[in-house]
Amino acid sequence: MISNQYSFGDFTLPGESGYEELTLELAKKWGADVIRDSDGTHLSDAITSAGYGIYSTICIIRQHNAFALEHPDAQQHTFLISDPVLARTDTVTIEPLRGYFEEQFEIDAAENSLKYWQVYDRTQNEPIPRERWTYENGTVTVRGCKKWHLYTVSFMCRRIWEEINMYNHTTNNWTSEHLRQLDPTHPLAWEYLQKWLKDWCEQNPATTVVRFTSLFYNFVWIFGSSMRNRSRFVDWGSYDFTVSPAMLDAFEQEYGYALCAEDFVNGGKLRVSHMPPTPRKRDYMRFVSRFVAQKARALVDIVHSYGKKAYVFYDDSWVGMEPYGEYFTTIGFDGIIKCIFSGFECRLCAGVDVPTHEIRLHPYLFPVGLGGLPTFSEGGHPERDALLYWKNARRALLRQKIDRIGLGGYLHLTQGYPAFNDAIERIACEFRRIKQLHTEGAPYTLPCRVGVLHSYGKLRSWTLSGHFHETYMHTLIHINEALSGLPVDVRFISFEDAENGDLTGSFDVIINAGRAGDAWSGADAWKSGRLIERITEFVYNGGTFIGVNEPSAADGFDTFFRLAHILGIDEDRGDRVSHGRWQFETVQDPPFSVCPVPRVNESLYLTDGRACVLFENGGVPQMTLNSFGEGYGIYLSSFENTPESARMLLEILLFAAKCDKLWISDDARAEAAYFPNSKTAIVVNNSEESVSTCVKTPEGTLKVSLAPLETKEIKL
Amino acid sequence: MISNQYSFGDFTLPGESGYEELTLELAKKWGADVIRDSDGTHLSDAITSAGYGIYSTICIIRQHNAFALEHPDAQQHTFLISDPVLARTDTVTIEPLRGYFEEQFEIDAAENSLKYWQVYDRTQNEPIPRERWTYENGTVTVRGCKKWHLYTVSFMCRRIWEEINMYNHTTNNWTSEHLRQLDPTHPLAWEYLQKWLKDWCEQNPATTVVRFTSLFYNFVWIFGSSMRNRSRFVDWGSYDFTVSPAMLDAFEQEYGYALCAEDFVNGGKLRVSHMPPTPRKRDYMRFVSRFVAQKARALVDIVHSYGKKAYVFYDDSWVGMEPYGEYFTTIGFDGIIKCIFSGFECRLCAGVDVPTHEIRLHPYLFPVGLGGLPTFSEGGHPERDALLYWKNARRALLRQKIDRIGLGGYLHLTQGYPAFNDAIERIACEFRRIKQLHTEGAPYTLPCRVGVLHSYGKLRSWTLSGHFHETYMHTLIHINEALSGLPVDVRFISFEDAENGDLTGSFDVIINAGRAGDAWSGADAWKSGRLIERITEFVYNGGTFIGVNEPSAADGFDTFFRLAHILGIDEDRGDRVSHGRWQFETVQDPPFSVCPVPRVNESLYLTDGRACVLFENGGVPQMTLNSFGEGYGIYLSSFENTPESARMLLEILLFAAKCDKLWISDDARAEAAYFPNSKTAIVVNNSEESVSTCVKTPEGTLKVSLAPLETKEIKL
Repeated sequence: MISNQYSFGDFTLPGESGYEELTLELAKKWGADVIRDSDGTHLSDAITSAGYGIYSTICIIRQHNAFALEHPDAQQHTFLISDPVLARTDTVTIEPLRGYFEEQFEIDAAENSLKYWQVYDRTQNEPIPRERWTYENGTVTVRGCKKWHLYTVSFMCRRIWEEINMYNHTTNNWTSEHLRQLDPTHPLAWEYLQKWLKDWCEQNPATTVVRFTSLFYNFVWIFGSSMRNRSRFVDWGSYDFTVSPAMLDAFEQEYGYALCAEDFVNGGKLRVSHMPPTPRKRDYMRFVSRFVAQKARALVDIVHSYGKKAYVFYDDSWVGMEPYGEYFTTIGFDGIIKCIFSGFECRLCAGVDVPTHEIRLHPYLFPVGLGGLPTFSEGGHPERDALLYWKNARRALLRQKIDRIGLGGYLHLTQGYPAFNDAIERIACEFRRIKQLHTEGAPYTLPCRVGVLHSYGKLRSWTLSGHFHETYMHTLIHINEALSGLPVDVRFISFEDAENGDLTGSFDVIINAGRAGDAWSGADAWKSGRLIERITEFVYNGGTFIGVNEPSAADGFDTFFRLAHILGIDEDRGDRVSHGRWQFETVQDPPFSVCPVPRVNESLYLTDGRACVLFENGGVPQMTLNSFGEGYGIYLSSFENTPESARMLLEILLFAAKCDKLWISDDARAEAAYFPNSKTAIVVNNSEESVSTCVKTPEGTLKVSLAPLETKEIKL
Repeated sequence: MISNQYSFGDFTLPGESGYEELTLELAKKWGADVIRDSDGTHLSDAITSAGYGIYSTICIIRQHNAFALEHPDAQQHTFLISDPVLARTDTVTIEPLRGYFEEQFEIDAAENSLKYWQVYDRTQNEPIPRERWTYENGTVTVRGCKKWHLYTVSFMCRRIWEEINMYNHTTNNWTSEHLRQLDPTHPLAWEYLQKWLKDWCEQNPATTVVRFTSLFYNFVWIFGSSMRNRSRFVDWGSYDFTVSPAMLDAFEQEYGYALCAEDFVNGGKLRVSHMPPTPRKRDYMRFVSRFVAQKARALVDIVHSYGKKAYVFYDDSWVGMEPYGEYFTTIGFDGIIKCIFSGFECRLCAGVDVPTHEIRLHPYLFPVGLGGLPTFSEGGHPERDALLYWKNARRALLRQKIDRIGLGGYLHLTQGYPAFNDAIERIACEFRRIKQLHTEGAPYTLPCRVGVLHSYGKLRSWTLSGHFHETYMHTLIHINEALSGLPVDVRFISFEDAENGDLTGSFDVIINAGRAGDAWSGADAWKSGRLIERITEFVYNGGTFIGVNEPSAADGFDTFFRLAHILGIDEDRGDRVSHGRWQFETVQDPPFSVCPVPRVNESLYLTDGRACVLFENGGVPQMTLNSFGEGYGIYLSSFENTPESARMLLEILLFAAKCDKLWISDDARAEAAYFPNSKTAIVVNNSEESVSTCVKTPEGTLKVSLAPLETKEIKL
């Protein structure tokens, strides 16, 4: 139990006009030092004048419809691709926008847009020369077609409905005016936005922190016309919605080559974050990030010139603002706010190079939560939701400092939920105590340095693309979530880092976890002989390589897993179907705990029969341990984050790094963190059962009994 | 019930010396007209002089050990590849033969062999120049290596133990001398073999048919040194064991380019039949087939010159003798004998262009059967085995004529199994009656022409590579087995056939069933725009394309299934993980019966939402029907042959070809064939339960009651 002396500060409360008394009462109960407005609410004077810091929310590119209608070209764009059309004669007509939501998109066929359009013969996979097609009245006509081939049009269009507003309208039946969004590449729009922000700052003297939600470009969200497939594509991490003729022209000017529609639409697949970015996409991401940082810097300067701070809420229109990118710190934000469900999101937030790190806890104060289940409405248990989300966050917060917490939504909904209010009070106290311990000195970390290796490396530290529930199908997010609360040193590295860095000097363990061809496994990056050399050397000299799913997978070599010689296991892609399989006995006393794999891969085989099989299914090895030189290759066919599997991962890491099991509870449901400067241990129960456990310390074993979900502080 | 008047002829009995009385007694019971010897047996005069035709078995390349030891270069060869070895310095030493069974292989480092060896840097995937490596005393030394790279040696070796003999020794603990095998590419060996055959013919005047088992080159079977992985590679259909310096030299002379070790060892994967042959392998297969046919012709001429017939038993050393290849008929065989477990093998045999088609039934007269279960020993039920294998064969025999049947093994084992002897008597009668009906005129076939499309086409009609139990993991063998007994016209076509032939004029349905990248799906063949055009045209004009597993799959295009526009379904390879999925309702009244798929593919998605979903799993469509132009695309994620799924396939075919359901029983367990010239229907029960069923005929419905596994003849 954490003492309730940690009762004030570092807490952002969503104020609500009309509920001034409740606002101030809960501000006191939860120890808030800051009150914020929410989307669609405005704080009354009774609140703004009560002595609290005031956060005000701004979505800079939205809510300028008059300007947008006057300057349609100042609106944002994207590429779209038509559905393929069959040539039954030598002429094909295509309505490009057919199948897309016409309230979201509007064809832009101006000359400077049209030059980026492409017509493709998809059967032959080649673009059609410009002179063979024409556009008129919403229809492209292609001549000289090959009969029975399929043709597509990739085209530029304006986005005429800001996507978050569109989502709220279509989901919650809003009826207000559709909001549009401006593109800061447009010179007039950019002038207008700066002026607008200055005016706003002048009109809002009580505001201490301007919270940007976020900057300019929304994540990609493409709606279809059919209610049977409304959300045709959504990717939190991709860059399609930054596209405009102006942006592409500027890119060509700087990089000396032009991007084309196909670089984005990719035959209809688009360029999802989960696939490795092409060199051209990497260039484009860097270019856009530089552009966004420059413009954002100008906005932050305006905010600062009014004596206010500028925080950014890392969501929605975040694209181009990579918090681990090379330009983020040049913006000069005073803080970053991340809404979190999971531990990895806390670590993502905590690791950003910015003065203040704030997390927005769940549940939001909404009647209905994620996936449509009730929260603050009949059947809801918001206090349990709060504690379970807190359980996810807490173990990450024990590893790295977060500066502030807060809530979002409509405060009046908490009425009638006193247990929720008590839970938040408790969470806030626990948070403050953990923060204080961090302030006194870093927690003890086991001498185990883990490098998570994927296509983006540091740029996409901790996250893949969006929240856990949006990415649960990717094993790496389970690994990241498990790692977020483990007492080890974790860094994210790219293949370039691995090829050029000192792996042996920097890491004890390297993890590669993904499906063949995806950004997390690495795809063609594994065709580099130099990369194979470096990791082979690393393991041979005593490092450990952990591969999950289809690690180091690439076509065209003697093995499918390019590190099969390290792992001792490989995957048969059909060309080894007539090979014999090594017989094996499953190891009876593995050097670390072994959980069953949640998903079986039936195509695995031992390469040379040396690897120890730790887990098998139907005679097929699913988890193996292979010694290689002084080090190890460890393979898991799949991984799903649970307390047991997170513990298994920890034990694997400690085995690999030859660490003592210090400050680790012997019950996987409980975790411990030790803060040596404060001589204080925090032991948490991640389960809803009571747990009695022992924790090994340098002075002996600590016996700890924990109530369900309890946080216990132990002075030593 | 078939009348037992069909009591004599077309039956080959394995005679056994020492059991002359039994031999003649069973010959009478089963109506044998021919008696054969078996491997390791010799017929006594009492048998050979009893008035029966006499088959004598010859394995022409085996049993010449004295000659082989005198002329070691006349023995057969193969390429092998060493296991990869890690470079820890700039010099690597490799013992090529390490890990292989030294009783099977012997390194051939003569100059004309050595020139075909290759050392590879597998990390960089490139061959090492010849001047950087040397071979001495069983070890290859490679200099100038890159540290941490892996190196292999691909080398030529002599095969010093004939593989079938080796198998019998190692499996049945034989202790006799290891038999070697001669290579007819060697001029002295070839002279010797011809002389040997002449001598043999002279010494065996009673023999009426010389049964070749088979010709020169065994299917590939590579043994390892470890008992944990004895059978390192086995492929009934591949050509590795035809390799020799002489064969490769001759190939280069004729084709103007040289093959190299990598063309065979393929980085250790070898070139399994289930993967599409490269153009170089195709050239080589054609070259070897021509060579084998020329040499075989010379042997057959010798046999004929002695007034005997020459049959070939299509097994073991069959490689290069492709019964559907362009050279087979030039050999001049008088008959082909195929040992069969399944219907597809009967069709394979029946379709060969040769005067006599004989099938060898199972079970063989051995104590233990397939997979080690007892047959003619305690716990065995040989009569049930015989009837169940007959059940598989029977439905195929109803579709196409087989001329003879027979047994193999040791006749004395039947003593004490009178039920087996009765079962064979019954089977022989039923076989003769079915053959007679075929002789009177072909059975009624529904007007549905099916083309099975894969990489080999006609060359590998019906078979993939070996028996069903060796290939059950490939869906196509299930399709072939189902088709083997269906009353439709079936042909096997290659992608070249499909590109260049008149599909619309030739077929109603085209089936493509395989995993991405394999020979049955087709791999890179699907990159041809012309192929896509032709099938698109075929379906648009009214044909039906049935795709199973990953049909028409190829990387590098807008869809993974290149015929996704026809099927309305495609597979997400990871790049559509953020796309929306079309919602659908499963069709409630499908136009044909629908069985659940035996294996789910979770990555499928509807392309444009138009396809009707016939079966789904967890919200993912698994079986779809899509109209396209005048025709249909039908997709099944998997298929396993059962009476119900074979019936589903038939109904799909009839739906596609718009056929009436004539001469089809309404119970899937029963099948019917109608012989119009004989005005006779045969109705069979493929189950071990009694079945009462109705069969639709042009004159009305026929009610038929069938005992378990019964064959019923109905005169109309």
